[in-house]
Amino acid sequence: MTALLLIIVGGLCAVAYGVVTIRDVMRRDAGTQRMQEIAGAIAEGAQAYLKRQYATIGIVGLVLFVLLAWFLGIKVAIGFLIGAVLSGAAGFIGMNVSVRANVRTAQAATTSLGGGLEVAFKSGAVTGMLVAGLALLGVALYYLFLTRGAGLAPGSREVIDALVALGFGASLISIFARLGGGIFTKGADVGGDLVGKVEAGIPEDDPRNPATIADNVGDNVGDCAGMAADLFETYAVTVVATMVLAAIFFAGNAPVLEAMMLYPLAIGAACIVTSIAGTYAVKLGANQSIMGALYKGLIAAGVLSIVAIALVNLALFGGFSTSFTTNTGLTFTSGALFGCAVLGLVITALIVVITEYYTGINFRPVKSIATASVTGHGTNVIQGLAISLESTALPALVIVAGIIATYALAGLFGIAIAVTAMLALAGFIVALDAFGPVTDNAGGIAEMSGLPSEVRKATDALDAVGNTTKAVTKGYAIGSAGLGALVLFAAYTSDLNYFIAHASPTQYRFFQGVSVDFSLSNPYVVVGLLLGGLIPFLFAGIAMTAVGRAASAVVEEVRRQFRAKPGIMQGTDRPDYGRAVDMLTRAAIKEMVIPSLLPVLTPIVLFFVIQAIAGKSQAFATVGASLLGVILTGLYVAISMTSGGGAWDNAKKFIEDGHHGGKGSDAHKAAVTGDTVGDPYKDTAGPAVNPAIKITNIIALLLLAVLAHA
Amino acid sequence: MTALLLIIVGGLCAVAYGVVTIRDVMRRDAGTQRMQEIAGAIAEGAQAYLKRQYATIGIVGLVLFVLLAWFLGIKVAIGFLIGAVLSGAAGFIGMNVSVRANVRTAQAATTSLGGGLEVAFKSGAVTGMLVAGLALLGVALYYLFLTRGAGLAPGSREVIDALVALGFGASLISIFARLGGGIFTKGADVGGDLVGKVEAGIPEDDPRNPATIADNVGDNVGDCAGMAADLFETYAVTVVATMVLAAIFFAGNAPVLEAMMLYPLAIGAACIVTSIAGTYAVKLGANQSIMGALYKGLIAAGVLSIVAIALVNLALFGGFSTSFTTNTGLTFTSGALFGCAVLGLVITALIVVITEYYTGINFRPVKSIATASVTGHGTNVIQGLAISLESTALPALVIVAGIIATYALAGLFGIAIAVTAMLALAGFIVALDAFGPVTDNAGGIAEMSGLPSEVRKATDALDAVGNTTKAVTKGYAIGSAGLGALVLFAAYTSDLNYFIAHASPTQYRFFQGVSVDFSLSNPYVVVGLLLGGLIPFLFAGIAMTAVGRAASAVVEEVRRQFRAKPGIMQGTDRPDYGRAVDMLTRAAIKEMVIPSLLPVLTPIVLFFVIQAIAGKSQAFATVGASLLGVILTGLYVAISMTSGGGAWDNAKKFIEDGHHGGKGSDAHKAAVTGDTVGDPYKDTAGPAVNPAIKITNIIALLLLAVLAHA
Repeated sequence: MTALLLIIVGGLCAVAYGVVTIRDVMRRDAGTQRMQEIAGAIAEGAQAYLKRQYATIGIVGLVLFVLLAWFLGIKVAIGFLIGAVLSGAAGFIGMNVSVRANVRTAQAATTSLGGGLEVAFKSGAVTGMLVAGLALLGVALYYLFLTRGAGLAPGSREVIDALVALGFGASLISIFARLGGGIFTKGADVGGDLVGKVEAGIPEDDPRNPATIADNVGDNVGDCAGMAADLFETYAVTVVATMVLAAIFFAGNAPVLEAMMLYPLAIGAACIVTSIAGTYAVKLGANQSIMGALYKGLIAAGVLSIVAIALVNLALFGGFSTSFTTNTGLTFTSGALFGCAVLGLVITALIVVITEYYTGINFRPVKSIATASVTGHGTNVIQGLAISLESTALPALVIVAGIIATYALAGLFGIAIAVTAMLALAGFIVALDAFGPVTDNAGGIAEMSGLPSEVRKATDALDAVGNTTKAVTKGYAIGSAGLGALVLFAAYTSDLNYFIAHASPTQYRFFQGVSVDFSLSNPYVVVGLLLGGLIPFLFAGIAMTAVGRAASAVVEEVRRQFRAKPGIMQGTDRPDYGRAVDMLTRAAIKEMVIPSLLPVLTPIVLFFVIQAIAGKSQAFATVGASLLGVILTGLYVAISMTSGGGAWDNAKKFIEDGHHGGKGSDAHKAAVTGDTVGDPYKDTAGPAVNPAIKITNIIALLLLAVLAHA
Repeated sequence: MTALLLIIVGGLCAVAYGVVTIRDVMRRDAGTQRMQEIAGAIAEGAQAYLKRQYATIGIVGLVLFVLLAWFLGIKVAIGFLIGAVLSGAAGFIGMNVSVRANVRTAQAATTSLGGGLEVAFKSGAVTGMLVAGLALLGVALYYLFLTRGAGLAPGSREVIDALVALGFGASLISIFARLGGGIFTKGADVGGDLVGKVEAGIPEDDPRNPATIADNVGDNVGDCAGMAADLFETYAVTVVATMVLAAIFFAGNAPVLEAMMLYPLAIGAACIVTSIAGTYAVKLGANQSIMGALYKGLIAAGVLSIVAIALVNLALFGGFSTSFTTNTGLTFTSGALFGCAVLGLVITALIVVITEYYTGINFRPVKSIATASVTGHGTNVIQGLAISLESTALPALVIVAGIIATYALAGLFGIAIAVTAMLALAGFIVALDAFGPVTDNAGGIAEMSGLPSEVRKATDALDAVGNTTKAVTKGYAIGSAGLGALVLFAAYTSDLNYFIAHASPTQYRFFQGVSVDFSLSNPYVVVGLLLGGLIPFLFAGIAMTAVGRAASAVVEEVRRQFRAKPGIMQGTDRPDYGRAVDMLTRAAIKEMVIPSLLPVLTPIVLFFVIQAIAGKSQAFATVGASLLGVILTGLYVAISMTSGGGAWDNAKKFIEDGHHGGKGSDAHKAAVTGDTVGDPYKDTAGPAVNPAIKITNIIALLLLAVLAHA
């Protein structure tokens, strides 16, 4: 009980940090009247979009709430609600801070680069801590209620189902928010760039471009709110999956089971505190290296986390040499679990470094794309695609090494603890990411309100680092899914085995006589791998089409405004910013529904189709294999898209820094094309693959629960 | 014995068709002096390239020959040699016909579209029949020698190892030829287009472009010789894998075993005859539909093949109701096997139709890319990528349905027979493909020698269909790999089980105490899936980089020539075509080596690394899983690249036909960019994934054989 209360205190620290830091940010100078007007328009558009988005998700959510309550009981339905509401809240609050911090960042950047970095990073840190804190609080408080309030046994099926449903609620928000926000932001960005930069020859964020406010709205609803929902989900699902595994591996061994179920929560709580401490280490050094400043914070958070997790080990297990035996017969020590957690942190560090290499402005990949731009649009895109494909190799090797090492230390539970430790740093990693859209917006506001060009230079420098940190978060989220592949699959197979073992004419009747063969020699396993593997490709294809369509609509709208009001280009007439925002809102909401339902419905349809063809046992094998299939291709599709997109964006920035002819050169035009292509890659299709993977897995678990109740 | 002789007669029919048709083609009018000069330059460049390529492969091949002879005996080494030499011969002869047919096609097109189609298709059919015929003859004659000449038992390990080595020889040529040829052709195409069409504003194949001969050489060495080697390999490996399965499933049951090992060869022989018959049905109808004419031939070949396979069933099994039982206990009838073969033909038909939908000029996908071109380079590429991702879905569903249906009919052997029947039509399918580069060349010759614009129009119409048929062959080859995934995996597991079961201190010592768990719950299976899945991504990334680098070099060279000889653009000075050809030859040979070795070395390195970490049993599990992993992602990567690339190319052609502003419009410029990006997608990286998959599988089988001899 003490441990659980301490965990909740850890979660509350994050909320407290949020409140204090919001106040700090809001106290900063909000700039001139013109700057505030622009920021106001951005905030208004972002809030209008999020309200519409949440209203739409609300309808789907309500239907699912009723279905869950009907099939699995009210505790499961409430779990779902908690996950959905908290995920939405993290995104909503984060975005609201973001749309106020943007103008303050621009104003702070008028004084110094360090000032701009401080405001932007603090605002990002609010989002980061709220994501981690609310996710932890949601799981911990509901677990407290279920086990203490409702008096359920910690590892009972009711507790497991309710926690899985909490993950499902988070996943549902996440997939809609990632896709809807992604389509909005990249529709605006691509459309605005094509008609503004390429056709009209006006710079990015020029106030004469009718799509410019929409572009800045998009940064907030996609890169901030959408990303926050995604990481909230990744965090919640990982913690829940680890708790489920603990419940399975230590069933019947009450004291150990309780400690093992609390261990992931305790790691989360400890690392929230260290992440907060890390934010105070982010300070621009004398060399003015922004990435260096962020690294200082990350290293501080990481090193402190090792100490903090060691303390958790002492508190929960009394040290490092306590020995445990799972009911599958595997024995490991608490020290081995600590080793797995440290490996999780090492994997995080390696993914950050690799992503920086592939997307950072100072290394071969980005420079090679910039060089290829000299020979035209085609070679820029070819080289960008080449880099995007190549960038999958090192993260995959790191993940594979992680699986092998942590499995050797403590089996599947060791892998789960490593993923938990990876995600425990989410507060800090999201902070790194969420500062990107703030600086992007700050640059826009600086441009539109005519601030001196040095301000734009400072915000551009911050933005270039933002491209890398945005890619980092995505690589980190998808990397945790890859490392956790076996954990999610184990949750499915363990549940399945449990139902099969306890099936009788009075209980779990559906599972009577079921016997599942997960060997690669079973053709239905190969069918499952193939069909699961298809999801990321098809899903990404639909998402790319949606962005293309939204962007084309923006281009038409902007051209129409230029024709209708020729004064816009002379600066004598004001464009109608609201129309572009409205149009994109409708387009994004409409386009997000079908692809979001693809990963939700696939496991269900797959199960019943294969059941009709080949019976229950093969249907369970197919669905199980599809869970690994979706991770297998999803990992590569997502990493290639997010790293490739980041590299394209920074190759353009590299040229804008004066290389290969600089702004306005033919190489720059080619680089703008590459950046445009990379936009939906890195900000719509790629990142949405991660929630798509998770939701497929969660749906499969819920399907088992529903069949068990049938 | 009679059956085997009849099979050999079938193979000889293909050779006879080749000889007769070559004569027929060579009798045609070769056009004007100028046309012959140009064709001569193309032929010279192509031969020079192929000689260099084969010389390089020869060195690698010699080393492997010695290694195989040392480790596995001379019969295995000779099998390797046969596969390599025949694969090379099919490509070499096909290319030599192609470089003579191009000019005759251009000349025939001056009279009528139908005339051009006839010459081009006949020349393609020579390559097609040689591919199928030589592959069949190679396997059948060596099998005849081993079982009759050397007196080995049909299903003995010596025979299996020797046949697998024959597949390895074919695979080795194939991966080098696909990559080397692909880098050459797309380096020339991309580089030539960028500097010619985009920079200098001169049309494709304009004689003033110094890269234009190299571009046409590339069509022959990549799309003709490279493709022929690829399909030769796919054919040979499929037939060999099916024979290996027959040997395993019917070991100890001599009369059935012999019939089952001959069945795939007999299907191959029968379908060569029907494919030849099908070529005579290719005739341009009154509606002048080229695709329609080709469909007539394909339908004729397909329907006749059903009849022919029925006759094979009668001859080998006495009908459709003979019942067989494998030594795994599965019973099926000869009618079920016939059903599987028919399903193989149906799958082929479906893949052709789906590929036509995604790459044909009259359907939504290509039109959507053309429409997206109106809003610029960026939206063109985004929509092209979206289509490329989406295009994987229907083929995957067809393959999955094929696996389920054929497995239900006759288990794994049923799947193998379906793949064999698919590949049995290779003669005709390759004919469809190989006519593409001939028409592409004919267009180039027409342009360079100043033939009237109607000729170019006719060759362009043929070329547009060629883009679709080229995508068809690639989808077909990779689709057969997807369908055959379980067959290749089964060959590995069956071999492995055989060695484990027969391991003793005196024989197969290495396999003593080995026990392999291929369940998805084994983390090393997931590690294998992940690492196998990485190969297509990394391999494609390296190939794309190689093309980008070769293209950039071409751009620099062409720019240099334009600067050094300003008379070139005025038409008063002749460009130095030879330098571009030379440069590309060196670049392609150099660039092909590293990526080709990736799939060759991966299984070996993987085995020994995992053995060191986790022991032999897990090493075998990891390598086995990697074989499925490489197919799983390879299927999607290859289909998306080949269909996407075809769609981009035809979107450009659609615009050139006068839509969205036609040639020279901004939409056209954007479409040229898309086509450029699609080039290495569809002609280098995508198609090379297929041999990469096969070679990984073959190397794993040979690794087992070597370890068994250790």
